[in-house]
Amino acid sequence: MDNRPIGIFDSGIGGLTVLKEVTEQLPNEDIVYFGDTARIPYGTKSKETVMKYSFQCIKFLLSKNVKAIIIACNTASAMALKEALEHFDVPIIGVIEPGAKAASAKSKNGKIGVIGTTGTINSEAYQKEIRELKKSSEVIGVACPLFVQIVEDGWQDTDVARIAAEKYLLDLKEHNVDTLVLGCTHYPILRYTLTKVMGEGVSLVNPAFETAKEAKQILKQNNILSGKVDKPIHCYYVSDDPEKFRRIGGNILNRNIHEIKKVDIENL
Amino acid sequence: MDNRPIGIFDSGIGGLTVLKEVTEQLPNEDIVYFGDTARIPYGTKSKETVMKYSFQCIKFLLSKNVKAIIIACNTASAMALKEALEHFDVPIIGVIEPGAKAASAKSKNGKIGVIGTTGTINSEAYQKEIRELKKSSEVIGVACPLFVQIVEDGWQDTDVARIAAEKYLLDLKEHNVDTLVLGCTHYPILRYTLTKVMGEGVSLVNPAFETAKEAKQILKQNNILSGKVDKPIHCYYVSDDPEKFRRIGGNILNRNIHEIKKVDIENL
Repeated sequence: MDNRPIGIFDSGIGGLTVLKEVTEQLPNEDIVYFGDTARIPYGTKSKETVMKYSFQCIKFLLSKNVKAIIIACNTASAMALKEALEHFDVPIIGVIEPGAKAASAKSKNGKIGVIGTTGTINSEAYQKEIRELKKSSEVIGVACPLFVQIVEDGWQDTDVARIAAEKYLLDLKEHNVDTLVLGCTHYPILRYTLTKVMGEGVSLVNPAFETAKEAKQILKQNNILSGKVDKPIHCYYVSDDPEKFRRIGGNILNRNIHEIKKVDIENL
Repeated sequence: MDNRPIGIFDSGIGGLTVLKEVTEQLPNEDIVYFGDTARIPYGTKSKETVMKYSFQCIKFLLSKNVKAIIIACNTASAMALKEALEHFDVPIIGVIEPGAKAASAKSKNGKIGVIGTTGTINSEAYQKEIRELKKSSEVIGVACPLFVQIVEDGWQDTDVARIAAEKYLLDLKEHNVDTLVLGCTHYPILRYTLTKVMGEGVSLVNPAFETAKEAKQILKQNNILSGKVDKPIHCYYVSDDPEKFRRIGGNILNRNIHEIKKVDIENL
């Protein structure tokens, strides 16, 4: 048993969808969350830059004495997980592998769509992972860079969201995919619009949910589940002004976030 | 006379619209351009963070021995120009004041719309500046956070752009503004869509053009125009991978950009 907290990081606020799933599946665990809001987004940036930022996030979380780390950002998982596992001596879990596994298991016709940021899609991380699980899979990745901002503006159920989705998803519909991986932490919030455009018959895979399941598994295997019985402690850190995080983050978690501290991540 | 270069910075690539106007109005000047592509965008971040980033950009340009600095980013101009003028001993020109002056001069009914990033609009920088020039002006600011990504995706002439513009600009149309300030360096690329939505009768103000005019004026007043006769030198620096900048920047300038160097802006 290990009562130290789990560390979770994301380029900003989107990773709270992962935190939410983790708290539901691992309700006794303490958590330290870091959102790199001063440098958000990662999805349009180069591998070198995303690796540098991710390593800084991991070092910060390690300084908070975490026992394991979840990379709640799809871009960072795609671009930095492998290198992070080689570099740091602590269990690190990304969102790609759990999402890919679930998609592979769900798909009946072997045609799987993946949507995400430009960085995630261009990295081919999901595509490679799914094909490794099942060689015959046909995986089509589409970058949907507008979706993050649409969600941040609260426009997920508007005409703008629907028409953008129709444009982005056209190719996936024509290829008759039966499973769609929501490869960006913001996208589950577009679930209603995505279902409307893709049709009820297409399964949506939310890697946040799958990642929390995987995290539970790994903590068990490593014998480091928490033995705490009192109320778990969740601490939040960000690199820009905490106020926006408090407001939008509160909406994602459906509860108030108190205690958010600002960190100068560039100069730790 | 002063043959040292002019420094220009922006959060990324958008400031090249300002550089383009400067090279047309000041064709003999050497230029050092810096695009903070590793931390783009500034428009969603706090004043404190934008100030910190802007000061780092200015320090970098000063290390390149520039004689004057143009803040080509609306958000940075709105949030950091005043403080930068107090802190640095070099002429520094922002895009807000020139844009506001032009809008005030153009408007006949005194009703002026300003569109920009959330940071620029919430700072009220344009609104205050225009009202200072003419107290009776009615100025309405609207944040259009989706527009930057729409332009970066090349979607400026699509249905998505038109419907987003109709949603954002509704209030301005109802208020019958006769002048619209394009308060973000990306927005001139949306000119066609904006004109279609606002109607031909509404004047669009491009602060990039006005800023280049102002820069010429200020160099003259300070007696620091270049006396060079040979071909001017333009150097480009970015904080993330130069490749994307080369590709999209080349489209904005309608010519190839060679020599782009990467700078570790966080650790100078």
